[in-house]
Amino acid sequence: MSELNRKSPERLQDRVEQVLQLLHQGDSDKEELLETFLQQQNQAELQRLLVELHPADVAHILESLPLDERLAVWQLVRFDRDGEILLEVSDAVRETLIADMDNQEIIAAANLLDADELADLAPDLPRDVVRDLMDLLDAQQRERVRSALSYDEDQVGALMDFDMVTIRDDVTLEVVSRYLRRFDMLPDHTDKLFVVDNDGRLQGVLPVKKLLVSSPDAVVAEVMAADPVIFDPQTPASEAAQAFERYDLVTAPVVDEGGVLRGRLTVDDVLDYIRQESETDALNSAGLREEEDIFASVWKSVRNRWAWLAVNLCTALIASRVIGLFEGAIEQLVALAALMPIVAGIGGNSGNQTITMIVRGIATGQVQVAHGRRLLRKETGVAMINGVCWGLVLAVIAFILYGSVALSVVLMAAMFLNMLLAALMGVIIPLVRLRTGGDPALGSSVLITAITDSGGFFIFLGLATLFLL
Amino acid sequence: MSELNRKSPERLQDRVEQVLQLLHQGDSDKEELLETFLQQQNQAELQRLLVELHPADVAHILESLPLDERLAVWQLVRFDRDGEILLEVSDAVRETLIADMDNQEIIAAANLLDADELADLAPDLPRDVVRDLMDLLDAQQRERVRSALSYDEDQVGALMDFDMVTIRDDVTLEVVSRYLRRFDMLPDHTDKLFVVDNDGRLQGVLPVKKLLVSSPDAVVAEVMAADPVIFDPQTPASEAAQAFERYDLVTAPVVDEGGVLRGRLTVDDVLDYIRQESETDALNSAGLREEEDIFASVWKSVRNRWAWLAVNLCTALIASRVIGLFEGAIEQLVALAALMPIVAGIGGNSGNQTITMIVRGIATGQVQVAHGRRLLRKETGVAMINGVCWGLVLAVIAFILYGSVALSVVLMAAMFLNMLLAALMGVIIPLVRLRTGGDPALGSSVLITAITDSGGFFIFLGLATLFLL
Repeated sequence: MSELNRKSPERLQDRVEQVLQLLHQGDSDKEELLETFLQQQNQAELQRLLVELHPADVAHILESLPLDERLAVWQLVRFDRDGEILLEVSDAVRETLIADMDNQEIIAAANLLDADELADLAPDLPRDVVRDLMDLLDAQQRERVRSALSYDEDQVGALMDFDMVTIRDDVTLEVVSRYLRRFDMLPDHTDKLFVVDNDGRLQGVLPVKKLLVSSPDAVVAEVMAADPVIFDPQTPASEAAQAFERYDLVTAPVVDEGGVLRGRLTVDDVLDYIRQESETDALNSAGLREEEDIFASVWKSVRNRWAWLAVNLCTALIASRVIGLFEGAIEQLVALAALMPIVAGIGGNSGNQTITMIVRGIATGQVQVAHGRRLLRKETGVAMINGVCWGLVLAVIAFILYGSVALSVVLMAAMFLNMLLAALMGVIIPLVRLRTGGDPALGSSVLITAITDSGGFFIFLGLATLFLL
Repeated sequence: MSELNRKSPERLQDRVEQVLQLLHQGDSDKEELLETFLQQQNQAELQRLLVELHPADVAHILESLPLDERLAVWQLVRFDRDGEILLEVSDAVRETLIADMDNQEIIAAANLLDADELADLAPDLPRDVVRDLMDLLDAQQRERVRSALSYDEDQVGALMDFDMVTIRDDVTLEVVSRYLRRFDMLPDHTDKLFVVDNDGRLQGVLPVKKLLVSSPDAVVAEVMAADPVIFDPQTPASEAAQAFERYDLVTAPVVDEGGVLRGRLTVDDVLDYIRQESETDALNSAGLREEEDIFASVWKSVRNRWAWLAVNLCTALIASRVIGLFEGAIEQLVALAALMPIVAGIGGNSGNQTITMIVRGIATGQVQVAHGRRLLRKETGVAMINGVCWGLVLAVIAFILYGSVALSVVLMAAMFLNMLLAALMGVIIPLVRLRTGGDPALGSSVLITAITDSGGFFIFLGLATLFLL
């Protein structure tokens, strides 16, 4: 084996970069480049490169290209790989690729996929194409696609595949080995065989590593693990992901209420799910509704972003009206206008720290409603220390700027109170949502910021009205 | 197999809840409860429950308990499981547990661990304990711990383990099978055997599923995959994680520059790494320095949070000084004070949307510096549409509130310009950082918010000074 032949990921990454660079050189003169490059002999070179790449790498290249080049490259991909690549690209990019294919092409591509993969793709395909595809399947496959489609995308049933190797429990390992040798290939990630009875009910699992170390004369029933970790198709995917993490699983059987083996969950799908969830969380916390094709049209982006801007406008308007209540005070002491955003801002920052802690504690199951009092004590303690320290710093700065002791004291008091408010709300909001069955994470950051903004303005300007004017 | 015997994760979850509930009932009278409960016969019941649980589940229970109860439960855990459990808990909780153990206990627990596990734990242990532990190891183990400790925690070398099954390439699969049967147990996640030459250099890998389907007479060299995905110990863990995701790996060999097999990377460690990274991202974006023990002392929490509050105070002070420049204008037209936070806030929101998109695009390799012009065009397009739309909405509201056309027009113009500024900076900041070799993600949200705050105040109050006074 030569060093060059090795598929180290860096080398593949290099290959990908190479393709992208070929496509990007002279970014200034795009159209011209496309003519000279894609339409001519380089096209062959590019096609050769694409054939060698893993579908996931081709997907990555497609995601990294602006629409016109993306479609040009998409045309060069051999149709028998279209399906696999469509599975790998992000939803937003998949949409652009499918829009470029006619129904015949889609059917040809999708026809090569497994039932679970087809189910993943189906929601993005035109309805009549899905109907045609279903007609092409045999009864068992059709049933599987239907079943996979019947689950919510956050349920185990939507993530599972059907690539199970099943055996009986009354045969010897020797027989199992001979049976396996009849396969051309075992499904990916086969780390265990599923032991079922005549009615398809799961009896246990035979880990491959047990098969390898045990005597060929042993009977499956003696060697198998009779109480594997199993999932119901309706189990939330997040729960399954936690179990995969905790128990270091590679695959796990999916079993219905009757105990019948329905499918198999594999770690690669769990990994994709975890990655996607954390991606979604990060986007949501920045006010983006969903994953956006980085080269999406302006209009698509506007639609993806307007909702949060609208929410933000509403909360900003409320804060603005709170300030409006105190216009008289600001007119008399204009320094208030310059200092008030500080009170609001620091309160928001500290409230976000608290609520993030609590929300994540709830998500991992470490925080329960019963902890409320203890957490309140702790968080208000933190807020009071921070309030006194930062309030003091700010008071000194304000005194240097404005020379008024009274103003400095009011500023410090407002800072202290707003941080206390932030801590209280940071604990109470998620715990109340937890108790009432809501999602503690949803919009928590927006809510706490709205409270600390309006609250901060109200406390600071209110105190100023009482004591300074 | 009875339904009850099955280790479905829900049932385990129930068991965990049961333990927690036992501990939490009557949360109001904690000390008393600990006396009546832990010190008496229930202790035996609890101990029995704990023994049955997976170390990861015990870790979860410990993380969910306030310090006093956590240590009470920790005392009940049998010492031979201490090491495994210490590996599973979060860093912050691990610290509290280790602080409760004397050196003898730590050594007894750690002594049962593998070299890679010991290396994971070592940084949290007292120095003299680590020295004593190293003395207890044989030469090969000591060398492995040293090697694992020599890598950065974000490198493959720190994540890899040493549980490799190696074979030669000139033997038949029959011989391999017989060799494997001499093991009592194969290492977890063994999905491939590593083929090495006499000098330990990796020749290829033999996937177990190939071993199972191929003829026993075949020779390893014919059947093995000669170009597996390999990693260098110095490869960044994030790169390895991407490769595991893309190529759906379960294990992969870690090979040094000389081609010698050094260790093995497994998907469960990659999964933990990915989860931890996304956790860290989420915490950082909320201004928390690191994962916090939810029941940490007030002082620990203050220390974890002060840095971001300080940064926030600085940026807020700058914004405040910008407002200070225009105190004269605000004195003359106090409505400006009420409206200015809206301009700043919406700008910040829209800037965060843009910069999050770009930063994530860079992280996944989809965005390059060469895309700058195209992305600027798109993002400014989005900003202009949003600026006009929301500016108009806001102008109408301002007119209803204040009845001044001129004020409304200035507000709309300021909104438009600040959103444009947000879009420009949202694209330029991360791309400049990328080109100069910096981390585009670091503090990006704080920076863009600081710019849109100060910028928003300056634009709005500046325009008002020019056109309204």
